[in-house]
Amino acid sequence: MRSMMCMDEVLSLRSRYVISAIHEDDAIVKSMEKSGKTVVKLNLGDPAVYFQTPQYIVNAFTKALQQGMTHYSDPVGLSRLRHAVSERQRRLYRLDSDIDDIIITQGVSEAIMLTNSILVNPRDSGVLFRPYYPQYLPSLEFCMGKGILGDYDEESGWSADIEGLRKRLRAGKRMKYLIVNNPNNPTGSVMERSLLREIAELAKDYGLVLISDEIYDEIVYNGAHFTSISEVAKGIPYIILNGASKVFSATGFRIGFAIVPGSDSVSLSIKSRLRAMSTLRLSASTPAEYAVAEGILNEHEHEISVSRMTTEIARRINNASRLINESEYMHTVLPRGAFYLFPKLDMKRLKFENDREFEQKLLKEEAVHITRGSGFGIADHIRIVALAPEYVMASAIDRINRFCRKHSKR
Amino acid sequence: MRSMMCMDEVLSLRSRYVISAIHEDDAIVKSMEKSGKTVVKLNLGDPAVYFQTPQYIVNAFTKALQQGMTHYSDPVGLSRLRHAVSERQRRLYRLDSDIDDIIITQGVSEAIMLTNSILVNPRDSGVLFRPYYPQYLPSLEFCMGKGILGDYDEESGWSADIEGLRKRLRAGKRMKYLIVNNPNNPTGSVMERSLLREIAELAKDYGLVLISDEIYDEIVYNGAHFTSISEVAKGIPYIILNGASKVFSATGFRIGFAIVPGSDSVSLSIKSRLRAMSTLRLSASTPAEYAVAEGILNEHEHEISVSRMTTEIARRINNASRLINESEYMHTVLPRGAFYLFPKLDMKRLKFENDREFEQKLLKEEAVHITRGSGFGIADHIRIVALAPEYVMASAIDRINRFCRKHSKR
Repeated sequence: MRSMMCMDEVLSLRSRYVISAIHEDDAIVKSMEKSGKTVVKLNLGDPAVYFQTPQYIVNAFTKALQQGMTHYSDPVGLSRLRHAVSERQRRLYRLDSDIDDIIITQGVSEAIMLTNSILVNPRDSGVLFRPYYPQYLPSLEFCMGKGILGDYDEESGWSADIEGLRKRLRAGKRMKYLIVNNPNNPTGSVMERSLLREIAELAKDYGLVLISDEIYDEIVYNGAHFTSISEVAKGIPYIILNGASKVFSATGFRIGFAIVPGSDSVSLSIKSRLRAMSTLRLSASTPAEYAVAEGILNEHEHEISVSRMTTEIARRINNASRLINESEYMHTVLPRGAFYLFPKLDMKRLKFENDREFEQKLLKEEAVHITRGSGFGIADHIRIVALAPEYVMASAIDRINRFCRKHSKR
Repeated sequence: MRSMMCMDEVLSLRSRYVISAIHEDDAIVKSMEKSGKTVVKLNLGDPAVYFQTPQYIVNAFTKALQQGMTHYSDPVGLSRLRHAVSERQRRLYRLDSDIDDIIITQGVSEAIMLTNSILVNPRDSGVLFRPYYPQYLPSLEFCMGKGILGDYDEESGWSADIEGLRKRLRAGKRMKYLIVNNPNNPTGSVMERSLLREIAELAKDYGLVLISDEIYDEIVYNGAHFTSISEVAKGIPYIILNGASKVFSATGFRIGFAIVPGSDSVSLSIKSRLRAMSTLRLSASTPAEYAVAEGILNEHEHEISVSRMTTEIARRINNASRLINESEYMHTVLPRGAFYLFPKLDMKRLKFENDREFEQKLLKEEAVHITRGSGFGIADHIRIVALAPEYVMASAIDRINRFCRKHSKR
């Protein structure tokens, strides 16, 4: 009998490494705010803070609530929404899918967790490129899997280094999937069709399920053209992740989609297990599902909202990029999608041990909250969310420059 | 290199056993409905289908939406809602808690999954009584843990058999927690305070974290008095799970609470790891959090709604219990909380292999969908959700009786 418990005995191993880098300094922010400070938060990619969720979507949500749509929905999602998602993928990417190919999740984060949970046994591997979205690796490790890391190459505008990755895959580990995020968080890169083809080829060669997180698909600019994985992945099993958070500026709705269009035996098994697994958490938010269905189906309203938002995001990103590239202490590749900047810090000129120290001191000294690049797997970088209005971004970048000068080696 | 994948290679082991018994026959229901049949669904405990979510809560939800509360909230939940939950527990159970003791989750199901994930390593055990809520065991197994099963004893009105369980705990396995669900799904039992004290004592003796799922706490009747675990668990770490789904008739909102009031080192670690883990899925539904905060804080409106609903549930439960106990083929203990009936089938008189066959044939032949008892860990029983109006329940029980007569051995 144990009458006393020690903490290390009680907690699981997995609980020790699981935290999102984006939120790890929230406690510092809260205590600063408690003492009256205003913190400029450039850490969280939340468009709904700056771009109102379109009124027609809010109205559809309200209508569903007032009509009593407050019960559980089908664990795999409302059929009306699954129909809408299927139609959306057909319209945008000529994908032929069925509502049975689609599972509605509580945000893409749940879709990532569910996907890992049905694929990954202890000691299996998932393949991902760094910098990666900070949830990918913890969700894989949560299922006791390990990451095999390829690289996006900054010199070539954050293009994926396929040959470099191929060499690492020869090790013969139990590899389950390859995940890409396109348009990319944090780099803002948008993959060329030819590159996506190579990635699909790689997945085929190694028998990997290909997962494409396309949550920013309609937020592209600066001449980029987005290609969905469904346009190039022929004859291999793949999963598309998407949702309402970014393109519909509705992060707080918590609605994501997992789409598995294949009819090969692997795709069928994945669908079947995602369906089974989804019963464990009963359903997504029912009235939010009605709202997002309307968000998709009212193409006219959506087109107006998303193009207005994307134009404005492009303006903010381009301005902020220019200001950053005028700095002596950092440099960024110009993004072509999503709403993040991922500048490299000139650490030789700065008196910091690492980007973690940079993040925490910047927060404490200048009340600017960004996220360390090492949280995305790449040292000596920072991620800046560039959604705030121009004057906020300009002032924040000023403060970062002042901070760098103060901690400069010269 | 693998150019072909076989299904067993691709899927994780955990994905094979994870499905909720409540939903496992959904595909049959869908195909019956497609062919024009009306299915009486008594499988899902969803009060919002029968009892409208109170209008004042729906209005608060609408207001939050119209005011633009559609962004992410804090991963641990909106402070307004955590304040409200803290006040609620103080008012109902004199629990002294702080907002830092509370995490808002996407339904209690997410709270169960998070709790398992921070506590359970592979080969660790969780202790639960059967019949158990069908999500408890898969969530534990999902984290590669094993269940140690105690029993609720039907003969004594589904009271927990503490001495029986104590014998099983002597085996010396790595035991992490003991979970109880009070009021109970599926039995409808409400634990006496003295019994809860014994359970707290047991948890203390074996160094187990005590988890109490109190989602039905305000839905008690037939003279029952509900005791929260916080009223008896002194000096041991414990977690209370609760949420908006049942008491506020708002299942489709997906809002749950995990409350960890202790200030001992184990409770502090649990809180800290729940907070960290919560960052991985960003947040719960923000406008729903505002709605549930109002649901709790407007005590007057809540009191009216919950007492009206509970009175009606008691009437439906008592009527359905009477009808079931008039049957020659089944018998139920009279519930005192929640809204389920868990009758024992007289299998000696029936030509069925098991309750799984009973469930599927009843669905196909009489279009009545109930859940097999074995899904809750107890053979030869069925769970009936008794939320539907009297005439629906009466007709369904008639059909079950007709079905039993048809498949009777005599």
